[in-house]
Amino acid sequence: MVFTPSLRLLAVSLVALLQPVSAIWPAPQTFTKGNSSLYLHQNIKITYNGEPLAYTADYPASALSSKEIVTAGVSRALGSIFSQNFVPWMLQPRGQLSKFEPDVYKGQKWIKSLEIVQNTKDANNIVKPALAGEVSEEYSLTLSAEGDVKLTADSYIGVLHGLESFTQLFFQHSTGTSWYTPWAPVEIKDKPKYPHRGILLDVARTFMPVKNILGTIDGMAASKLNRLHVHVTDSQSWPLQIISMPEVAEKGAYHPSQTYSPADIDNIQKYGALRGVQVYFEIDMPGHIGSVSLSHPDIIVAYDQWPYQWYCAEPPCGAFKLNDTKVDDFLGKLWDDLLPRVTPYSAYFHTGGDELNRNDSMLDEGIKSNDTEVLRPLLQKFIEKQHNRVRKQGLTPLTWEEIPLEWNVNVGKDVVVQTWLGPDSVKNLTSKGHKVIDSNYNFWYLDCGRGQWLNFDNAGYAAFSPFLDWCNPNKGWRHVYSHDPAANLTPEEAKLVLGGEVAVWAESIDPITLDTIIWPRASVAGEVLWSGRIDPATGQNRTQLDAAPRLSELRERLVARGVQSSSVYMTWCTQDPTGKSCEYPLV
Amino acid sequence: MVFTPSLRLLAVSLVALLQPVSAIWPAPQTFTKGNSSLYLHQNIKITYNGEPLAYTADYPASALSSKEIVTAGVSRALGSIFSQNFVPWMLQPRGQLSKFEPDVYKGQKWIKSLEIVQNTKDANNIVKPALAGEVSEEYSLTLSAEGDVKLTADSYIGVLHGLESFTQLFFQHSTGTSWYTPWAPVEIKDKPKYPHRGILLDVARTFMPVKNILGTIDGMAASKLNRLHVHVTDSQSWPLQIISMPEVAEKGAYHPSQTYSPADIDNIQKYGALRGVQVYFEIDMPGHIGSVSLSHPDIIVAYDQWPYQWYCAEPPCGAFKLNDTKVDDFLGKLWDDLLPRVTPYSAYFHTGGDELNRNDSMLDEGIKSNDTEVLRPLLQKFIEKQHNRVRKQGLTPLTWEEIPLEWNVNVGKDVVVQTWLGPDSVKNLTSKGHKVIDSNYNFWYLDCGRGQWLNFDNAGYAAFSPFLDWCNPNKGWRHVYSHDPAANLTPEEAKLVLGGEVAVWAESIDPITLDTIIWPRASVAGEVLWSGRIDPATGQNRTQLDAAPRLSELRERLVARGVQSSSVYMTWCTQDPTGKSCEYPLV
Repeated sequence: MVFTPSLRLLAVSLVALLQPVSAIWPAPQTFTKGNSSLYLHQNIKITYNGEPLAYTADYPASALSSKEIVTAGVSRALGSIFSQNFVPWMLQPRGQLSKFEPDVYKGQKWIKSLEIVQNTKDANNIVKPALAGEVSEEYSLTLSAEGDVKLTADSYIGVLHGLESFTQLFFQHSTGTSWYTPWAPVEIKDKPKYPHRGILLDVARTFMPVKNILGTIDGMAASKLNRLHVHVTDSQSWPLQIISMPEVAEKGAYHPSQTYSPADIDNIQKYGALRGVQVYFEIDMPGHIGSVSLSHPDIIVAYDQWPYQWYCAEPPCGAFKLNDTKVDDFLGKLWDDLLPRVTPYSAYFHTGGDELNRNDSMLDEGIKSNDTEVLRPLLQKFIEKQHNRVRKQGLTPLTWEEIPLEWNVNVGKDVVVQTWLGPDSVKNLTSKGHKVIDSNYNFWYLDCGRGQWLNFDNAGYAAFSPFLDWCNPNKGWRHVYSHDPAANLTPEEAKLVLGGEVAVWAESIDPITLDTIIWPRASVAGEVLWSGRIDPATGQNRTQLDAAPRLSELRERLVARGVQSSSVYMTWCTQDPTGKSCEYPLV
Repeated sequence: MVFTPSLRLLAVSLVALLQPVSAIWPAPQTFTKGNSSLYLHQNIKITYNGEPLAYTADYPASALSSKEIVTAGVSRALGSIFSQNFVPWMLQPRGQLSKFEPDVYKGQKWIKSLEIVQNTKDANNIVKPALAGEVSEEYSLTLSAEGDVKLTADSYIGVLHGLESFTQLFFQHSTGTSWYTPWAPVEIKDKPKYPHRGILLDVARTFMPVKNILGTIDGMAASKLNRLHVHVTDSQSWPLQIISMPEVAEKGAYHPSQTYSPADIDNIQKYGALRGVQVYFEIDMPGHIGSVSLSHPDIIVAYDQWPYQWYCAEPPCGAFKLNDTKVDDFLGKLWDDLLPRVTPYSAYFHTGGDELNRNDSMLDEGIKSNDTEVLRPLLQKFIEKQHNRVRKQGLTPLTWEEIPLEWNVNVGKDVVVQTWLGPDSVKNLTSKGHKVIDSNYNFWYLDCGRGQWLNFDNAGYAAFSPFLDWCNPNKGWRHVYSHDPAANLTPEEAKLVLGGEVAVWAESIDPITLDTIIWPRASVAGEVLWSGRIDPATGQNRTQLDAAPRLSELRERLVARGVQSSSVYMTWCTQDPTGKSCEYPLV
């Protein structure tokens, strides 16, 4: 009798159901595993498309070629197994680690080889990322009981994803000098549900040093997140150095030490590209641009105007004049300088467009009106012009939802619209044929619920106590996990949802709290976007019960890699890999 | 004409009102300053009660004498000025630091001497702390325009407080190698409103390594907080090693690496004593003690009983049997072992007493009842016995409010009652003559608002989304600041409020997030407790407008000293020392 793959898969998955922790985060599309142990040796034989691949600690990719990038990826993966791993005592019942660990003194069986096969050649310009969905992120990973590992993918990005899954199979042994997987044999076939899985990081309200951005990319790569959206300027500060207009950052940054040089930008984007993370930038406009007033006061209206509520969502206000050739000149110069520099690593550029307050134009000598009928055509022209300039550099524009929805500005169907106001916006836009990425503030705004950052005098005290922020409460990871960006859409509409981004706005956080705010919640949204809200095995929404033990393990891996992630729950809970000890009982 | 002190104080305080940042946190009772700069040199001449005092970096107090402790304090203070200071560009208007800084090239005027005078001899047993109010924490600090500094206090603790205020006068110059105060002359007369100003730290639900506890003490000393209440055991784990009963921690700790040895306990308490922080411990009972069941199952009822809601507030349940001589034997052995070890550094011991669920005794073979009339006399006997044993070791018992209020157990008037359920409890207890420390959960529970830590299956989803915790929302610092522990009390009642503690429970936090949860909010409660909720200068509640710029400065000092404090608000706000840019305008 021929042992057919489907029967074998069935048999192995029955075993898997009985096992408490299934290790990989985000959950692969299919994942079967056994219960044999295999040890990994630092001298493992590795090949890439048939050729030997030698890894070294911290291998620096010397050229942006597939082989160099994969070699660096292998080096990071094995480096994380051998030097950033952990003994999983906190994930096992108290005092019972020995039941989980293999006995090192009883005939160690070794992994013999890691064979990496990439089916398709990467494009010549390898780090120029394609648009959403244009590059395959699929991979398959098998680890035989005999110790042969095979990783297959279509692209270098697929290979990197497969390597991340590989690292998540391994633990450090408590004896200290062995590393093992307890799950052999393993078979994983995996690909993402959504092609756009990202984090929006605000570095304008609070400056985030380059090293924190790179650290964020590390966490993203570990979680198979693939888009870092850097909200790089806003009314509070302009940290982005523009070569042809040095005055903008000189006057607009909080401090000379709080700027990004062209080399910093290149470094950040390249670091991302080497890890399968596309870094793209947003210069928010025509609102949220007040900091330009510090260097070019004549092109901005309502800068730091009070009371701010009449002119913008938070202090300081500031918007571009909507009908001024000097604005156009400034932006032409800006695009010519900036876009060619970011294009090698980006498919997208975000031109903002949120929260434009129509009262700003009341203060604009050339307009003096807050009438939508007056402003809309001006805004249409403004947006069209900037989007065309972005397109001309080979980039696809992104815009916030207010531009098409609140202002009824026509944007091209190539433009990706980012929503934040909820499912009605997603439905509305996709029903009109717009591509969407979703950042529903009720679920995925990670900085919410930390309290007001404005100060209240004693007169305002009674009305505003207990001083909650606008998007209170805090979005705990369980709530983040419950969001489905494509809920209640028709299949046609759902196809236009490219994915989503968690948002990390920076009124109340800074480099010290950054990691604890982002992690593990970005990874949680990452599983929704990679694996889907529905578990195909049950046809039901994925549950917290299944997620919590796996997430606890990912969290320990993040910490071991230097990402200062918040905890999932207390040790009492993590030490029950079934999660039952911390399940709320309905009584 | 004699220049009378009162006129001089008046004149200087008018100047002070015009200045944006007044530096010291918590606000001193009286504080006047000028606007001359003085530089500090590492070779400053220091005396303590007339004798020369030589400081060195990281001076280790070799004996627990006043002189040794003060020498170590001076070393820390000068060390923090010279090596843990910062250039305050983030606290000044963008690009205008030079208007704040003195010109180093224009005749530097130096501080000549630091004269420390302690009026009263410390007790022989110097680190045995007195009860609340029995040791003077008062100090006065003057810094003349000519560069003479005089610090006067009654106790070594007062000296340490004065040194903390001294460090807060100084900044690093942007040229990098000078340290200055811009505020000379300075005159501070200061003492705390409340003698008990603390943090409750839960190290049982999540283990906190010794270094994190010491780091917490560092932050406390910087904020003039003086009580660290370590909630050292609970139903989830028992990390405390008991010499005579090693099995309790061996089986009750999460992991052998997650225990406190007797040397650790001594180290923590001594570290606190050297910094003016009394570290005392709580062994919560008769509820919240389930972890003892792992080593002594016969003395515990309802351990990890389900559904937990019937037997306790959160899993796992577990309580002492209320009428069992074996419990008594266990506790006798525990007290004999533990109390003599903590007594040299503590005036207090906390015997817990919160959230005892009467259903636990239904499962107690010797009781089988949940009738309060049956349980109350047993509890009365239990509490009385333990309190007497605590007293016998020279310690004063603390108890949670439920013991006297919910169970009507009579406790001695020497016992300090900790409230958490709000102002009615404070009023009720003080009106009956009980001493109280307040930890109102609606204001001072710092771990609240992070979301549920229990997991919900899909059946519970709808009812519990968005998965908020019981004490949601998060208590932002502005809300923490608005709490007055003695609000609505008669003067007689108010006298019995010894102070308060912020609470840091550990279901959802761990060493990685710990600092960001505690700071700066513990310091904010610290100002309420040191300076009082009312600003004597205005007779009004202290406002966020005055607090925010000062707190921002303290926050930078905490970070510079290695305490990973959350931010107060974004740089846009901190760069306006008047706070006006981020004041909510009532429109």
